[in-house]
Amino acid sequence: MLSASDNALLTRTGAGTPMGDYFRRFWMPVLLSRELPEPDGAPVRVTVMGEELVAFRDTRGRVGLLDPRCPHRGANLFFGRNEECGLRCVYHGWKFDVEGRCVDMMNEPESLAFAHKIRTTAYPTVEAGGVIWAYLGPADQRPPLPYFAWTQVRPTHLHVSKVIQESNWLQGVEGGIDTSHVPILHRVLTADSKRPGFNPNDPFVRGKAPTLELDVTDYGYRYAGIRPLDGGEVHVRAYHFILPFHQIRPGRTGAGSFTAVAGHMWVPMDDVTTMVYNWEYSTTEPLTEEDRLERRLGNGPLDVDQTTFRSRRNRANNYLQDRLVQRTETFTGIDGVNAQDRAVQESMGPIVDRSREHLGPADRAVIQARRLLLQAIKTVEAGGTPPGVESTYYPLRPAEAVMSADADWRTLLVAASSKPEVLERV
Amino acid sequence: MLSASDNALLTRTGAGTPMGDYFRRFWMPVLLSRELPEPDGAPVRVTVMGEELVAFRDTRGRVGLLDPRCPHRGANLFFGRNEECGLRCVYHGWKFDVEGRCVDMMNEPESLAFAHKIRTTAYPTVEAGGVIWAYLGPADQRPPLPYFAWTQVRPTHLHVSKVIQESNWLQGVEGGIDTSHVPILHRVLTADSKRPGFNPNDPFVRGKAPTLELDVTDYGYRYAGIRPLDGGEVHVRAYHFILPFHQIRPGRTGAGSFTAVAGHMWVPMDDVTTMVYNWEYSTTEPLTEEDRLERRLGNGPLDVDQTTFRSRRNRANNYLQDRLVQRTETFTGIDGVNAQDRAVQESMGPIVDRSREHLGPADRAVIQARRLLLQAIKTVEAGGTPPGVESTYYPLRPAEAVMSADADWRTLLVAASSKPEVLERV
Amino acid sequence: MLSASDNALLTRTGAGTPMGDYFRRFWMPVLLSRELPEPDGAPVRVTVMGEELVAFRDTRGRVGLLDPRCPHRGANLFFGRNEECGLRCVYHGWKFDVEGRCVDMMNEPESLAFAHKIRTTAYPTVEAGGVIWAYLGPADQRPPLPYFAWTQVRPTHLHVSKVIQESNWLQGVEGGIDTSHVPILHRVLTADSKRPGFNPNDPFVRGKAPTLELDVTDYGYRYAGIRPLDGGEVHVRAYHFILPFHQIRPGRTGAGSFTAVAGHMWVPMDDVTTMVYNWEYSTTEPLTEEDRLERRLGNGPLDVDQTTFRSRRNRANNYLQDRLVQRTETFTGIDGVNAQDRAVQESMGPIVDRSREHLGPADRAVIQARRLLLQAIKTVEAGGTPPGVESTYYPLRPAEAVMSADADWRTLLVAASSKPEVLERV
Repeated sequence: MLSASDNALLTRTGAGTPMGDYFRRFWMPVLLSRELPEPDGAPVRVTVMGEELVAFRDTRGRVGLLDPRCPHRGANLFFGRNEECGLRCVYHGWKFDVEGRCVDMMNEPESLAFAHKIRTTAYPTVEAGGVIWAYLGPADQRPPLPYFAWTQVRPTHLHVSKVIQESNWLQGVEGGIDTSHVPILHRVLTADSKRPGFNPNDPFVRGKAPTLELDVTDYGYRYAGIRPLDGGEVHVRAYHFILPFHQIRPGRTGAGSFTAVAGHMWVPMDDVTTMVYNWEYSTTEPLTEEDRLERRLGNGPLDVDQTTFRSRRNRANNYLQDRLVQRTETFTGIDGVNAQDRAVQESMGPIVDRSREHLGPADRAVIQARRLLLQAIKTVEAGGTPPGVESTYYPLRPAEAVMSADADWRTLLVAASSKPEVLERV
Repeated sequence: MLSASDNALLTRTGAGTPMGDYFRRFWMPVLLSRELPEPDGAPVRVTVMGEELVAFRDTRGRVGLLDPRCPHRGANLFFGRNEECGLRCVYHGWKFDVEGRCVDMMNEPESLAFAHKIRTTAYPTVEAGGVIWAYLGPADQRPPLPYFAWTQVRPTHLHVSKVIQESNWLQGVEGGIDTSHVPILHRVLTADSKRPGFNPNDPFVRGKAPTLELDVTDYGYRYAGIRPLDGGEVHVRAYHFILPFHQIRPGRTGAGSFTAVAGHMWVPMDDVTTMVYNWEYSTTEPLTEEDRLERRLGNGPLDVDQTTFRSRRNRANNYLQDRLVQRTETFTGIDGVNAQDRAVQESMGPIVDRSREHLGPADRAVIQARRLLLQAIKTVEAGGTPPGVESTYYPLRPAEAVMSADADWRTLLVAASSKPEVLERV
Repeated sequence: MLSASDNALLTRTGAGTPMGDYFRRFWMPVLLSRELPEPDGAPVRVTVMGEELVAFRDTRGRVGLLDPRCPHRGANLFFGRNEECGLRCVYHGWKFDVEGRCVDMMNEPESLAFAHKIRTTAYPTVEAGGVIWAYLGPADQRPPLPYFAWTQVRPTHLHVSKVIQESNWLQGVEGGIDTSHVPILHRVLTADSKRPGFNPNDPFVRGKAPTLELDVTDYGYRYAGIRPLDGGEVHVRAYHFILPFHQIRPGRTGAGSFTAVAGHMWVPMDDVTTMVYNWEYSTTEPLTEEDRLERRLGNGPLDVDQTTFRSRRNRANNYLQDRLVQRTETFTGIDGVNAQDRAVQESMGPIVDRSREHLGPADRAVIQARRLLLQAIKTVEAGGTPPGVESTYYPLRPAEAVMSADADWRTLLVAASSKPEVLERV
């Protein structure tokens, strides 16, 4: 349970808000690289933390991210001409490069003399892991580049997608770090069902309700859900929460012949809309085309419009919930593990009222994440460097195993992370 | 004409408003029984007086009506599993019975110890006349059960339907108790037209503009529109207005071989949306399938989507008004007597500005209804028992006749109501 | 650049606003005459300067323009019966003539005694040039009739259309009086393209960025964009801006065998929606059916729904911008010269923030228009007669020519306007 004021602090990320100031200390995912596939191609609209922007890839391949309002009269540069290392407004022909400099004016007889006085807002960008990241914060506090392990994997082994969630970002994060819901919400009722989710024979499901163990770290925390099994063993699933919105979890893509690592990033478009980035990589064999369809998660091109990034299953159609399937095959009657997540998280409302909650021991990870975020806000307000902007956590890996009840799950994480993470630097 | 403040008093029914407090002293229709056809079937969303709720029929057939927000983290119970005498949230498996008690938690190791501390809002319900009624008021002031005569009729003789009106509830009530508009708005222009409405040969239409006579009673009022006919006779139609939103009128369903009684209830979903319940019963022969189509009124399955209860003819399409039909066949060019009512009432705007009206003698019933409602609000505010919560009016019946100009229409009502109303208790 | 308060002053035209008071001193276009094609035909909804009205053509052909709320109970007269010189509300049969007088009541026994006390708001109308104009201002300050030259042209030589623009009216006007954007925004890239716009061989396009010369007049101003050509000549295009929202420009319709004059009027429906009226007339041969399709401008029945007057190319579909066409054929990739205008003007937002602009010498006409409008507001507030309400400017004509760099463009305008404008009085 949170006070209404703490709830507002945590959920508002617009320019000038405390959480917005904290978020602006990070590189933020703003597009998939494949949305700007070629130099001088079509510009793309971006909305991040309440700011509307326009992105374009210039003649030399650099990505510009500009205020879309032309400084002249305010026409939108989205309709502009992307040509010769700049984006040109179609109304009067003013042209801007990726740094935001005005480099030409077609309407003025004394173009160059006037143009050099004009500059528009431009944010620095970098590409890593098939994602375009932007830095919207103070120039003198730019953090290290966002080279998470998954961003350094060769493209054959990596898949990244995105999908819009119609709720505040924190509802997404809180679902992502809440291991306790996974074998409930995502449960398949019968062992022979082909629908996606966790099978009743899976030790994850067979286990009793878990106890949570959590270690706060310099990047956020690592934690495990420990589920007692019959016969003295336990099922353990260990995740990382990296501030402010990264989850790293064991992956389960494909036929099971390889080990996968997966995660999400919940990036606020505005306070009631979130762009969820989904990534997964294989540490052994390349991913297949079938893997990239993401049927199990419901995040791929069969489930999400690849132009609007709206899910076909959405609030307006009750996520195509099938009550007969709910009665006989799956816990929800909704297909797609992440479609199920979005359904319950969106059903809480655009910004859930956390003053009405009743949290218990199973919500320890959720409670701790809020505490760290509130501390981080205070650190920024006090002029300090908040947790999560350093890069020491880039090689972290998750783990999942059945082990003896008296073994320590931390040894799994150390073993996993000691493997060489970087397959190829791209 | 009303002051702006009185208009606000009469039209706002949200929790904590004076009219909302008055409404919450009554059993309120919230669903048709057939919307929850079977035990453990799909839950249904309900919106009443601005409150969003979820209804379900449990394993034993009881109807639960709960706050849809799970007390745990706020996920919506609408997506829940209706199983074994309770509705279970799909997010973490918390389960609630029809009384609102939490009876299980799947995510917590110490489930039962925690669960017994949790309770959610649940409202009592009762079924009568094919309608599910709920009581949302103070527990110690629950009124008698809503056993109106029509609710006690055997199902073969009763039909009930519902349809959404896109306006405040009071605009609906004011139309329902305004006999003066009926042979105008609902007029058919030519005797040979097959379109629904009142035929030019009908004495109701042939009569001159009516005088209104009205007796205030303990339940609201009874009143009659008296229309002079040629030759010294009058046409009389006598209704009842039962507080706060019931109309009882002479029915005209079917081929005319039986006597029918009909009425509406205008139940606020919110202050700009009303769920209109329509009922009709035969006092002689059973109703036919054709009767249940309600072609004449435009309230049946051919005219109203039976999932959303939106009318096919609605504001967005100008009620499919046909200007040629308006010129040659019917007064409005809109088919369906109640579709015509909704058209004009919705056309007044979401909440009509009653400070701009010009009322005359023909509006006496409308004026009196507002007066009684304003008095009732004051009675509740003063801690008293307002009119309309007692059950003495349950057997009331309306009447329609051509009679001598010096006869008293009240004798018709007494004769009608002295008949045994209760055909069967269901 | 404008202050936020001046921006609000200029853009708000609702009843009681300073600009609204100024606008209400003029005859305002409210419909095309062809929208009310016959006596006793269907009424039509009108929205102008934030006021919702209903228009009808009565039995004698006169156009009534009334408050749509019936004074009785507020039902909308749009659904009314247009019959025997009046519009009758279908709810209770109250009937109003084009002057707003109540001439009948069907619901009241003493109809006529009551009716003569009731009057509703009615605005005077006049038809000229295929347009229905209304006067919404003070009765004692009605201006001369709006007999612009184009309104006096015989129908065979005149075409008028309309289309909704999803922005404030001033963004439209500012585009219409901004000659500098025309050969940029509307440029065709290759001489052999068949797409509409200004060809690279056109002297308008070949000319360098223009200098602007502008003479303030009693009606607004006349001005010219003067573009240097190779060889000591200049291309001149001279327009008139007539307060508050009229543009008169050289026309370019058809195959070029005749001289055309064209213009727009930007009429506020509300502060974020504008009805743009487009007119063009030939001074020689009659217009053809092809001319009336307005393919080049994108304003005709192929491009604009003739019931809703919404453009098929609109904000919701990015104006069907084709990025390949933009790269290879036209500056925007959007077909239709005025569709291009609407695209950039709507892209500025519903009401552009003029405090963030950077205006230069090329924006002189825009700056001057704002100055005149702000002065006019002050004149009205001081009780004076503002510029633009007199009729001396009716015969004005524009001009376009290639001329010697030391000739005076004003001579072109004088020559043009000295021609007899009036072909026929309609």
